[in-house]
Amino acid sequence: MTQPTAAVLLIGDELLSGRTRDINLQQIAQYLEPIGIPVRECRTVSDVQEEIVAAVNALRAKYTYVFTTGGIGPTHDDITADAIAAAFNTGISEHPEVIADMAKRYEAMNTEFTPARRRMARIPHGAKIVQNPVSGAPGFQMENVFTLAGVPQIARAMLEDIGPRLEGGERVHKVQLRGTGLREGDIAERLGAIAKTYPSVSIGSYPWYLGMGDNGVALVARATDTGLLATVQGELEALMRSLGVEPVLDPA
Amino acid sequence: MTQPTAAVLLIGDELLSGRTRDINLQQIAQYLEPIGIPVRECRTVSDVQEEIVAAVNALRAKYTYVFTTGGIGPTHDDITADAIAAAFNTGISEHPEVIADMAKRYEAMNTEFTPARRRMARIPHGAKIVQNPVSGAPGFQMENVFTLAGVPQIARAMLEDIGPRLEGGERVHKVQLRGTGLREGDIAERLGAIAKTYPSVSIGSYPWYLGMGDNGVALVARATDTGLLATVQGELEALMRSLGVEPVLDPA
Repeated sequence: MTQPTAAVLLIGDELLSGRTRDINLQQIAQYLEPIGIPVRECRTVSDVQEEIVAAVNALRAKYTYVFTTGGIGPTHDDITADAIAAAFNTGISEHPEVIADMAKRYEAMNTEFTPARRRMARIPHGAKIVQNPVSGAPGFQMENVFTLAGVPQIARAMLEDIGPRLEGGERVHKVQLRGTGLREGDIAERLGAIAKTYPSVSIGSYPWYLGMGDNGVALVARATDTGLLATVQGELEALMRSLGVEPVLDPA
Repeated sequence: MTQPTAAVLLIGDELLSGRTRDINLQQIAQYLEPIGIPVRECRTVSDVQEEIVAAVNALRAKYTYVFTTGGIGPTHDDITADAIAAAFNTGISEHPEVIADMAKRYEAMNTEFTPARRRMARIPHGAKIVQNPVSGAPGFQMENVFTLAGVPQIARAMLEDIGPRLEGGERVHKVQLRGTGLREGDIAERLGAIAKTYPSVSIGSYPWYLGMGDNGVALVARATDTGLLATVQGELEALMRSLGVEPVLDPA
């Protein structure tokens, strides 16, 4: 079985200017992990069509799935739908069902269905709709590329509609052990030896320094084989204890 | 005067798995903005040498400066220094001054200077050191590529040593106006017209939905010309007020 893979493309000047700290990569990765689709790459580009097109085409050729976020609202800086159409060399126009749904929704809200709001119903030709239960304006799926809103709550809701369309892979299990007071330099050699002994288990080491003596190292092990993972967990626990540090197992 | 540009390369499985929510892009962008170096692109790659090398080489050819974060610690998954050396097709070995500094530091801490810790003194040939006042192990500069730690406090401290080496550009000024209760669909047409009238001012529109009625739109305008920026600010304020919303100006 080939493991499916994913890439995330974050679109928006606000991420590159430092105005907004992204959380969509994290929530997409956390959604995909349990269904066995690891995110392998992420790119962040500005609201410039050629940049979006180049990134979409690079990523969709390389990974099983691509998830874009941002740029599908009603304002002039929302150019993602046009960029996706351009990337796939197809047209874009108002989607009749989306127009009908949105018209109904705005009528119920006693809100004018302005030309700007109609822009949000423009969908690249051949794309499938991704439902947006939060605010109505949909995302869409163009082959293996899913286009989501940038607002995190909406992006999260859209993942629920996308989930059943994805072909998952072998589930990757993980354990995280935290060792308060531990220092990477004291464990690195033995940790490297464990990593070498179990090449099919991916082991990461992440120090933290929060000040006031709150520092340490978190060790994360990932594997599809739960038996092997348990063995590695035991070795990591033994490594910490040999240095007088009691490992704390984080909830999976 | 050509405007310098920057790209950020975030390195680490923990970002792609969703374990860690990145904050380094934001702090690097916020550091560079006042000195007139806009970040144009960001990529996040895993701890795989070919992926790092490919991204470094793509970005350093395209942008004035590249900033990498992550992967320069003492453990087996810290492969950034080797990847940078490979990207520049140069060698890597222990840097005598760094070894001397670190030996002194560890002696003062009464800590063994292990082979793993010595790994952190391996610097690509031809690179300049970037000081790390927090924990000693340095970053480095290879031509236009700056390699920083992944731990945010350390990355931030390293920027202070890098700053004087950068040639800044024309300062981009910005204003942000928040309109609580505002909806993008109600302002989009007139906002687009303002953006069209002032093409040298970049205008972004960012809705928020925090629930409990706390929603609205933040409008951000950016320009090098402060006079023009003030004019646009006036137009955006008038747009909000015409809809009965009092704009709140955020501190610059």
